Amino acid sequence: MEIANLPIGFRFNPTDAELLYYLKKKVLSLPLPANVIPELEAFQFNPWDLPGGLNENRFFFCKRKKNLMSKCSSFSTDCGYWKSSGKEKQIVAGESNHVIGMMKTFVFYQGRNIKTQWIMQEFTIVAHLKTPFLDQRLMMKVGSWVVCRLYQRKMRARNHGAAELGHSFAQTTPFLPTSPSSSSSSEITDMSSSDLDE
Amino acid sequence: MEIANLPIGFRFNPTDAELLYYLKKKVLSLPLPANVIPELEAFQFNPWDLPGGLNENRFFFCKRKKNLMSKCSSFSTDCGYWKSSGKEKQIVAGESNHVIGMMKTFVFYQGRNIKTQWIMQEFTIVAHLKTPFLDQRLMMKVGSWVVCRLYQRKMRARNHGAAELGHSFAQTTPFLPTSPSSSSSSEITDMSSSDLDE
Repeated sequence: MEIANLPIGFRFNPTDAELLYYLKKKVLSLPLPANVIPELEAFQFNPWDLPGGLNENRFFFCKRKKNLMSKCSSFSTDCGYWKSSGKEKQIVAGESNHVIGMMKTFVFYQGRNIKTQWIMQEFTIVAHLKTPFLDQRLMMKVGSWVVCRLYQRKMRARNHGAAELGHSFAQTTPFLPTSPSSSSSSEITDMSSSDLDE
Repeated sequence: MEIANLPIGFRFNPTDAELLYYLKKKVLSLPLPANVIPELEAFQFNPWDLPGGLNENRFFFCKRKKNLMSKCSSFSTDCGYWKSSGKEKQIVAGESNHVIGMMKTFVFYQGRNIKTQWIMQEFTIVAHLKTPFLDQRLMMKVGSWVVCRLYQRKMRARNHGAAELGHSFAQTTPFLPTSPSSSSSSEITDMSSSDLDE
């Protein structure tokens, strides 16, 4: 399937479990359902320098650091650093409560301490182990790849109205919440123009 | 394109502007990019009775109420009602600041006053008018259809960790954040099973 030919409104927007499905295929060197996740050491870059649309969720396969002693929680770039935030979260498959991966969240700080809206989520596959010594199953992170989801956290506006868009409704064009027939002396100028065709 | 054949992780998840693009086509009786939005009077139903996956964004074309006097802000169902919430919001096309539609948000209340997480956003096309009398442009809602986006607002968890999933990380399986080679006496049982293949 040519991903480039998707109809308007369709996009790659996987759930956490679907993203881990892609990662599992990658880790096992199996064919991926679609070739949409580039390999890139995303933590080495400022978020605005990474490829993709600024308002889209973006995804990258990165090499996993497997050093036992490595508990790195911060990655520097030339303009700031990615810092881990909050606890790691288990990702479960559907309704099953079966843990299929872990997710760690990083926030980008510009300069020394300016917290930005940029978020990177790092997903890792886990394997479940049986041990001959313990009467329980163990879980551990495996694979030489992780997958990352990059996005900008939305600003929470207090005013749910037009102010969110940076301009007040009342300050711009007057608004008539009616049907066209009530203003027959007016001329509809551009309802038929398609803003997405431009 | 057969929408049913999309690879895993791809879905119809339009931006507000893309959704208004579909609505404009519908209002003008032009072919839609894809046949993915059913016609349904969504406000007549309890959210859980509407077709589609509970955790997916769902979309419906509904007939617009064009009565001038109708400022209806509440719609009853057999288990509760949809009540409008907050101010109407202008939707602009891209970076242009050109207003292409309006969005009104409704919340579903169960019984008499139990606020739920169910949200319905109602989008309407607007047209821009020139008037011979006023030295400004007017905007008004037009068209015999609106388009609605239904979704469940996510619960905001205070703990960013596993507690969000309803069970504590520590209470379940022990976790080894290492590589497989460090536990050679153990047996990896189900890393290769695909939870999405089920």
